[in-house]
Amino acid sequence: MNEIAQRMTDKINIDERFSRITDYWNPHIAGELNGQMVKLVKFKGEFVWHHHDAEDEMFLVVRGAFDMHFRNRVDRVGEGEFIIVPRGVEHKPVAIEEAWVMLFEPASTLNTGNVVNEMTKAELPRL
Amino acid sequence: MNEIAQRMTDKINIDERFSRITDYWNPHIAGELNGQMVKLVKFKGEFVWHHHDAEDEMFLVVRGAFDMHFRNRVDRVGEGEFIIVPRGVEHKPVAIEEAWVMLFEPASTLNTGNVVNEMTKAELPRL
Repeated sequence: MNEIAQRMTDKINIDERFSRITDYWNPHIAGELNGQMVKLVKFKGEFVWHHHDAEDEMFLVVRGAFDMHFRNRVDRVGEGEFIIVPRGVEHKPVAIEEAWVMLFEPASTLNTGNVVNEMTKAELPRL
Repeated sequence: MNEIAQRMTDKINIDERFSRITDYWNPHIAGELNGQMVKLVKFKGEFVWHHHDAEDEMFLVVRGAFDMHFRNRVDRVGEGEFIIVPRGVEHKPVAIEEAWVMLFEPASTLNTGNVVNEMTKAELPRL
């Protein structure tokens, strides 16, 4: 295996990567494959209502819990659980306590979807 | 939200889904998004050397640990860790004890890649 392939295959310790994140609602890139990205983000507080026109999103809770608000219901997603939000479906994550969340979504996905405001992160840091 | 979207967004408890799996090396589909699949698989023993021509694969360990053999080294991947194997890179997972692994990969990915043998699973069960 050449050096690039070896670097690409280095294993990632999820907790260790989360320990480098010091802010909320700021997804960090932890991996990339097949045009999709693995992002790590700390949630705390209330995000904005939004949807993604062309992208499905997966939220996997590594630590803590958060509430995924849909227009007709709220789902509590706890540690060791994941939820997939299909494209076009409005949603708003809310975390009363800090939650560590792994996202799996296309590289093109903007965190606030169809909304652009002060929570929008156009450029994501890499861990 | 209509009924289909609601069903698609039902949250998944990973341990509970793993508890339904009774065999080894048989990936079960637990989710689908953006043409990618989330698969759950129990490893025990030795798999076959193989590669995927056009697909990168992510292995996230939910319980236990396994060794990812590459042609020039071996990486131990433990609970809470993941590894991405780029397309074209030969690999062979080996688990001395049972390990629970979540896979992220394109829907088209065949478990044994370029090899077809008695471990090949052409049709995957859904959880």
